[in-house]
Amino acid sequence: MYYFDFTATTPPNNEVLEVYNLINQKYWGNASSLYKTGSLASTLFEKAKNELKDIFKLSNHNIIFTSGATEANNIAIFGVANNYQKKHVITSKVEHPSVMACFEHLEKQGFDVTYLDVDENGIISLDQLEKAINNDTVLVSIMWVNNILGSIQPIKEITKIVKNQNRAKLHVDMVQGMAKIVPDFDFNDIDLFTVSAHKLNGLKGQGFLAYNDSINLMSVLKGSGQQNGLKPGTIDVAGACACTKAVKISYLKMQEHYEKVCELNTYLRQKINQITNVTINSGEKNYSPYILNISILGKNSETVLHFLEQFDIYVAAGSACNSKIRKPERCVLAVTNDENRALSSIRISLAAQTTIEEIDYLIDKIKLIASKE
Amino acid sequence: MYYFDFTATTPPNNEVLEVYNLINQKYWGNASSLYKTGSLASTLFEKAKNELKDIFKLSNHNIIFTSGATEANNIAIFGVANNYQKKHVITSKVEHPSVMACFEHLEKQGFDVTYLDVDENGIISLDQLEKAINNDTVLVSIMWVNNILGSIQPIKEITKIVKNQNRAKLHVDMVQGMAKIVPDFDFNDIDLFTVSAHKLNGLKGQGFLAYNDSINLMSVLKGSGQQNGLKPGTIDVAGACACTKAVKISYLKMQEHYEKVCELNTYLRQKINQITNVTINSGEKNYSPYILNISILGKNSETVLHFLEQFDIYVAAGSACNSKIRKPERCVLAVTNDENRALSSIRISLAAQTTIEEIDYLIDKIKLIASKE
Repeated sequence: MYYFDFTATTPPNNEVLEVYNLINQKYWGNASSLYKTGSLASTLFEKAKNELKDIFKLSNHNIIFTSGATEANNIAIFGVANNYQKKHVITSKVEHPSVMACFEHLEKQGFDVTYLDVDENGIISLDQLEKAINNDTVLVSIMWVNNILGSIQPIKEITKIVKNQNRAKLHVDMVQGMAKIVPDFDFNDIDLFTVSAHKLNGLKGQGFLAYNDSINLMSVLKGSGQQNGLKPGTIDVAGACACTKAVKISYLKMQEHYEKVCELNTYLRQKINQITNVTINSGEKNYSPYILNISILGKNSETVLHFLEQFDIYVAAGSACNSKIRKPERCVLAVTNDENRALSSIRISLAAQTTIEEIDYLIDKIKLIASKE
Repeated sequence: MYYFDFTATTPPNNEVLEVYNLINQKYWGNASSLYKTGSLASTLFEKAKNELKDIFKLSNHNIIFTSGATEANNIAIFGVANNYQKKHVITSKVEHPSVMACFEHLEKQGFDVTYLDVDENGIISLDQLEKAINNDTVLVSIMWVNNILGSIQPIKEITKIVKNQNRAKLHVDMVQGMAKIVPDFDFNDIDLFTVSAHKLNGLKGQGFLAYNDSINLMSVLKGSGQQNGLKPGTIDVAGACACTKAVKISYLKMQEHYEKVCELNTYLRQKINQITNVTINSGEKNYSPYILNISILGKNSETVLHFLEQFDIYVAAGSACNSKIRKPERCVLAVTNDENRALSSIRISLAAQTTIEEIDYLIDKIKLIASKE
């Protein structure tokens, strides 16, 4: 299998599964139970949270384990916004569907929403953000790394702008940046951030939200008091520990993997640039090496995907989360303003285990379809 | 370990873990991806849903896999209610905290909520339900088996009453009844029902909502279109298959286990009745044999719990979901109207693997604490 869709999901690491199994076999007590099998589970859960806090050097953040990034994004966005009515909120035009859907819902509820534009590199304008933010702004949500193009947003500069507005909180969807891009910012400066495990060789159905404990979050799901009432229901201790394990393993290898993938990306870009009828949609600067978005002109995304599939090659036509809706890829359209490119875009994602041989094989087949009538 | 808290959680079955591991190792593709590793995962997911539909002989229901019963209860209750504003809804005074919290939230939003009383057996009054339900009622949510007392609600009769009101939908929290009590009703007559896996030797963080597909449900979490947009985010196929496996195994053994546990319950009740200062809070009829709630008069629930813990015996002081809040147990108060009994109640839960020897050991220690000054 020639797998180039690590942005959609990744194979689970055996070490992660081992942690999950161990806890399910030995420490399956209900973490809310008052007796020792409960408190043993509860202790493991607290340990998992503390490990994450240590990794990100968080001093005033809480961690809520969720069923994935979508739930974490919902808790963050509605958790902040639902303290208010019809206030001003800001996001970008290239957010993940789970963030976009929350903002569209807020808009329906009467919130004033600013959707920031992106330039040809897929990057928001700090000027536009500065002009948009005001005393009425309660939330700014900007992703770290775009899941379609790989554009890296200037999070450090964004934190400074948002900090100047006392009431505004900054949420960052870190799903595609976490443990891949070496952060130039202090995690303590991000009011709320979201992480998914299965993008980091963890398990599906697992993720977390970290948030500054000075923030009052309104719960989205209602129930008992587990996880500060923000993720009510019996705590999945095995899931939390497996999630932490996945983040920890990836975070330790971040720098090494980044360098490896940078080389792979440079090689891939060079090869792609040599093919007639193929253009690169990902930006020229501030991009994640893990993602390369291209268009094979005149060829529909899905046609390309299925053509490559015949050769056991797997790439994405847009986000897997939106894959069953056939329309011009929203993020590609935002940077190219070209419907044809947006309709023919495919996303190639790389990982540290990707080889030059695999890339050569992929390039070969892309050449084949690009040259077809 | 003398474990008598199967109502709080159960040890995961190895077969369930095997299914979970197998899918994570071999079929980890993103079920929303358009290529074959995606469609393979998607096929397994559809198969899991169909297996559940077969078990319950459902002809017009959809299945949504969730991160547990709390999320499923939220999707059901808010999913129905949020189609309306300030309508009438009905529940009982002895629902699980996750159902209760949803209704309290609806009440804050201006809904008119009827909380049905229960009699000395913990059973609602069908008369009261019939009088309460009206043209304005959009939702009735009644649990099958109470998690504190074990009372079995007359679901079959409830379906008939709710059916007479065209607009009203019936939601049943089936967490403590599923695969334990042989249903006398047709699952097709229940508009929406909720199940948790970890109460059935499945894994935590897994459950499902089944709902009649004629019902328009408003999503609680916002995001992409997975699972009819009601549980957006990357589908946890391994979790769904493991959940189905747990339900299937338990359901096949339901009758056999029920008979076994009935015998254990009868034995336990006889022994408890012989102890001075101990009263049974669970009803005399229509009770689940899996749960026996008692009070040791003059002894605080938590004191008893920790006393028994010394002997490696584990029982619950109320619901694990509410364990960290020390107040008279709500359900025990509802049936006994006696604050002292509610403050001294403990819940003993049984399973098919419980032995007479274990019960004798427990009885011995209860006698010890009951006779203490």
